[in-house]
Amino acid sequence: MEIDNDSAYQQMINGELYLESPILQRQRRTIRRKLMQYNQIVDNDERNQSIKGLLRSAGDRFFVEPTFEFSYGVNITIGDHFYANHGVTICDEGLVKIGNDVKFGPKVGLYTPQHPLDPAVRRTEAERTAPITIGNDVWVGGSACILPGVTLGNNVIVGAGAVVTHSFPDNVIIVGNPARVLKANPPKD
Amino acid sequence: MEIDNDSAYQQMINGELYLESPILQRQRRTIRRKLMQYNQIVDNDERNQSIKGLLRSAGDRFFVEPTFEFSYGVNITIGDHFYANHGVTICDEGLVKIGNDVKFGPKVGLYTPQHPLDPAVRRTEAERTAPITIGNDVWVGGSACILPGVTLGNNVIVGAGAVVTHSFPDNVIIVGNPARVLKANPPKD
Amino acid sequence: MEIDNDSAYQQMINGELYLESPILQRQRRTIRRKLMQYNQIVDNDERNQSIKGLLRSAGDRFFVEPTFEFSYGVNITIGDHFYANHGVTICDEGLVKIGNDVKFGPKVGLYTPQHPLDPAVRRTEAERTAPITIGNDVWVGGSACILPGVTLGNNVIVGAGAVVTHSFPDNVIIVGNPARVLKANPPKD
Repeated sequence: MEIDNDSAYQQMINGELYLESPILQRQRRTIRRKLMQYNQIVDNDERNQSIKGLLRSAGDRFFVEPTFEFSYGVNITIGDHFYANHGVTICDEGLVKIGNDVKFGPKVGLYTPQHPLDPAVRRTEAERTAPITIGNDVWVGGSACILPGVTLGNNVIVGAGAVVTHSFPDNVIIVGNPARVLKANPPKD
Repeated sequence: MEIDNDSAYQQMINGELYLESPILQRQRRTIRRKLMQYNQIVDNDERNQSIKGLLRSAGDRFFVEPTFEFSYGVNITIGDHFYANHGVTICDEGLVKIGNDVKFGPKVGLYTPQHPLDPAVRRTEAERTAPITIGNDVWVGGSACILPGVTLGNNVIVGAGAVVTHSFPDNVIIVGNPARVLKANPPKD
Repeated sequence: MEIDNDSAYQQMINGELYLESPILQRQRRTIRRKLMQYNQIVDNDERNQSIKGLLRSAGDRFFVEPTFEFSYGVNITIGDHFYANHGVTICDEGLVKIGNDVKFGPKVGLYTPQHPLDPAVRRTEAERTAPITIGNDVWVGGSACILPGVTLGNNVIVGAGAVVTHSFPDNVIIVGNPARVLKANPPKD
């Protein structure tokens, strides 16, 4: 894709301080416009195929309830069998990689942008990103949010309303703000 | 209603492990489509009467700001004098019973589904539900969410952003994640 | 504006117990209808100029992602260089004053209404408000909410998912539910 060769895009996904380039701005505008249109498609197959077509890649059995929103699309890769309930927002300024058999409850947010701490820099619109990586068999409860740089292992259950500020390994249930391990949850044999 | 005789529907509202049946799937599709349409009705009376007509029952003075979303509608019963601000989502896979004189702030979520803890079962789409019951004179602050199995008594005030993981009796103010009693709040004589 | 001379409006913004007057009700209806329309405008300049025109005042470089919602509009004043990501809701029954160079993440909520604690009063729809004031160079992370009466100083960073229940001075990073200071963040010289 053309965007892959844009130096601002490379800075963006590499976690460097970047400013939106004309190519990034054009992509953002295109995605915003298409999402406004696609989220209103009543036919489920058509809506989901249209939205899926805006992502870098997504596997089989992709189903999102409207309204599903993201920033660039090209930074999102999703495995097979993905479900997102109403009102999920993915800020994919940074890379977002989601495994197989993942479910998001309503109002879930994945946020990769990190605005600079210094206000003089923040005012310039310069920002950094950190990637979010989500394993297989992850269930993110409604109204939870996941912050920049977080990696969740396989079979992680995120309790509703949790604020996930750091990474967690496989087979845990996490809850709270900030999220902490509630208990281990190994798969049954 | 036809759905009442569906065995998957009976399992669903009874808290048993269930898989979506064709009848459930059709109901979900109908509700999704109608909500997309009804939430865009500009006339307040027409919008509210249309949305109200998708519920099992709701009393007088029913007013919801757009966008108001739910899953099946047939599992929601609401008393008189209900108000929901923008962006409320009710996952009514399980039964949701709401009393009289109840107010929801913006972005409130009521979540009845409980996905199985074992990932191999979760992958099959099988899930359970637990009902949510809300008394009279309850005010749920904005961005709060209420989890499966919770019963709130009469005159409960849920602070904005609270995550309500278990039940609470009458006349309390609850806040936090997880929600706990902040103070008693008996009605004045 | 006509509304400024309405006694219910004066009570509303002054923090007194008030009931919605015909003038307030008309303003609320107008705003609801126009927001439903304006949030669907695809052209970015036209959408933002239309929404900005519903506010008491807003400065240069005003950009909000759809859907951006508020109650009355006339109680919101915003400085220069404002950005709000998708799904921000401002309940501006009370006065909301936002400084320059402020950014809101997705799903942020600003809530000024305070429903009475006594259920018999709450049932009448009477309510009070308390103002929200946000300084310059404030960044409010996604899914955070800010409660009635809160003042945030300049250069405050609100962590994603924070629930801000009281005021904070300049140059701090705040996180959690309820929000507390995580660390000082003085600007670099």
